[in-house]
Order: sequence, then C-alpha cells, then structure tokens
Amino acid sequence: MKIIVIGATGTIGSEVVKALSVNKHEVVRASRSGEVKVNIDDPASVRALFDKIQGVDAVVSCAGNAAFKPFAELADADYELGLRSKLMGQVSLTRNAKDHLRERGSITLTTGVLATHPMPGSASISMVNAGLEGFVRAAALEMPRGLRINAVSPPWVKETMVKFGMDPSPGQAAADVAKAYVAAVEGKHQGQILDPRLGRA
Amino acid sequence: MKIIVIGATGTIGSEVVKALSVNKHEVVRASRSGEVKVNIDDPASVRALFDKIQGVDAVVSCAGNAAFKPFAELADADYELGLRSKLMGQVSLTRNAKDHLRERGSITLTTGVLATHPMPGSASISMVNAGLEGFVRAAALEMPRGLRINAVSPPWVKETMVKFGMDPSPGQAAADVAKAYVAAVEGKHQGQILDPRLGRA
Repeated sequence: MKIIVIGATGTIGSEVVKALSVNKHEVVRASRSGEVKVNIDDPASVRALFDKIQGVDAVVSCAGNAAFKPFAELADADYELGLRSKLMGQVSLTRNAKDHLRERGSITLTTGVLATHPMPGSASISMVNAGLEGFVRAAALEMPRGLRINAVSPPWVKETMVKFGMDPSPGQAAADVAKAYVAAVEGKHQGQILDPRLGRA
Repeated sequence: MKIIVIGATGTIGSEVVKALSVNKHEVVRASRSGEVKVNIDDPASVRALFDKIQGVDAVVSCAGNAAFKPFAELADADYELGLRSKLMGQVSLTRNAKDHLRERGSITLTTGVLATHPMPGSASISMVNAGLEGFVRAAALEMPRGLRINAVSPPWVKETMVKFGMDPSPGQAAADVAKAYVAAVEGKHQGQILDPRLGRA
C-alpha cells in the first residue's frame, strides 16, 4: 500500500514509519519540516498535501498539539490550540482524505489515554481526545467507497516520559505503540479506538 | 439553593425549571431572549451573567447548538457552530462558574446520547458531545472549593421527536429527562455523565 504518515519524525510517527516499511509498504513521510511538508493546523496545507501526493491507500496521523496545564491556568489560547491542531487538524485531514484516498483505503488518527482516563492538567487534552473519538465513531458510519476510519489511543509512551523526566516504567515503548497503527492500516477495523496495550486484537 | 438555569425556555430547560421550583429552589431563568439574558456562544455574555447574578449555588446549562448534517455536507461553519456553542460555550460557562459559585456549588452541563451512540449525520454533534464529556471528567479532578461538575446526556426527547415529525415512542419525555438534572444538582455526583434513562441512581 502507499501510505502517508503525518508526524513522521515524531516519537510515535517514526516508529510507525519503520514498522510499515518493514511490512513492505511504500511510506510517504510527511511532517512540518520534512521533505513532504504538511501542517495539520492549517486546512490549506492539508488540502495541498493530497493535491501533491496521489494514489494514496492510507493516511496515518501521528500529529496534533494540545495544552497540558492546570485547569485554573488554561487560557483561551490553550483551548484554541487543541481545537485547531489535534482536533480539527485531524478532522480536516479526514475530510480531505475521504475524497482522495483509493477505494477501501483507511484513515488512522491519534487520540490518547487522557480521553477516558483524565488527570489534573488534562481538561483541554481530555476534551480534544474524547471529541476526536466521538468524531471517529460517527464518521465511520458515513465513509464512502469502502473507506475505513479508526484512531489509536496511545498510553503514556516510555520515550516521552524520559524526555519529561518521568519514571518510564509504567509507559509503553513507541515501537509497541506503533503496532496498533499497523493493525489499523492492515486490518478491517472500522470506527474503532485501538488501545495499543491490548495487543493487535 | 439559588440556581441559574440557562436555556430556561427550551424543551428540556423549561422542565428543569419546573422540577427545581417544585423542590423549593430559587430558580433564575436565563436564556437568549428572556428577562435574564445570556448567550453561551459569547464569552462576554457569560462573564456578564455572573457579574449580574450573585450568590449562586448552582448553574445548569440546557443550552448550546451544533449541526446535524450528512458528513459529506458538513462545512467549516457547521463544525465551528458546535465548537463555539455547545462545546466551548459550556466550557466558558464552567470557567466562569468555577470562580463565582458559592462553596460546594455545582455545574451541570448538557451533552447527549450521540456522544457514544452515533448515527449518520452526527459526526459534528458526536464530536462536540464526546468532547464535552471528556472535559467534564477531567475538570472534575480540579474543581476548587468543593465545587462539583457533571453532565446530563439526554436521549432523544419525545417532544423534540414530535417537532421533527419522528415517531416519539422510543424517546423520553422532557419531564423525565429533567429528573437527571435535579439529581445532579441535589446529589453528590462528581465528574459523572448522567443518563436520564437509568433513573435517579
């Protein structure tokens, strides 16, 4: 399959690229600064991506930002970041992919464990992640041409925890998280939120 | 208790006002066109509400719009409506209420069954409702001064179904839906999504 991975240079995205390549897929690495440029926060940039890269079977998004900050300190701009980037950026990706992917292609987005398991500081991220999950479940009912849409909900990732000075032992390695994305691309899931901790079920 | 009900003239809101009044609460009826005016789509209007009405124990929102439309027809403006009105309108209400409600007061928002049980046409509404549920679960962890926050997730309401020319038999009467709001205000729920079909549990 020909697969665009957005956020291809990130902690999870780079492992998704690796795992899809091992499985002999043709992977187009897209990111804000790479060879194929895309910024999902900008709808025009997303439109341009699909004009430029044709004949795509699947798109995987490992991109999108949102603010993690105590509830009392979350400002308008913090909410707007998550809505514009991680939520509507991936919705915009879906709306464009729907019209451009090959028949029976797939869209795989990224949500996160905070959607359903919040913690102090996650009010905005939990809202964005849960909203994206609601969107995926609903949009799946109306995908044309046999297209599929799913999201992966990564737990805390070991590599990220190390970066933040946290104890990585409860986390999952990015390479293991990546397996859920491969399963979503290669499988028959539709409207599902995949938890990488549950294996490739 | 002194309770502001927003959307007090609506199908559900008017029954919530009635039920809270029967229980001897002092109810302030707020809506876009009533005596106490508020438009939750407009953050300045929400701020003004709490400047005007003081000594409030609880606020109940039965307000907020979102577009119901086939996925292929949902335009930018449709998504923006739901984000600005039903989602961020109620988030803005929460952020203001947090600073103005009396100690141990409560915030009760409105989500809806489409958050978890989508149907064709609900991509935007399901996103908005699910996002609000994620927000409520997370914000509950950081409520100051013993404040509580919950949401009621109404099923299809009989009166609304009649208005839309649908068969109302699978729906729930607004007066029964209202009981869940009363339970959220008078109870000890925190971070819960109340389903009115499950009674006052």
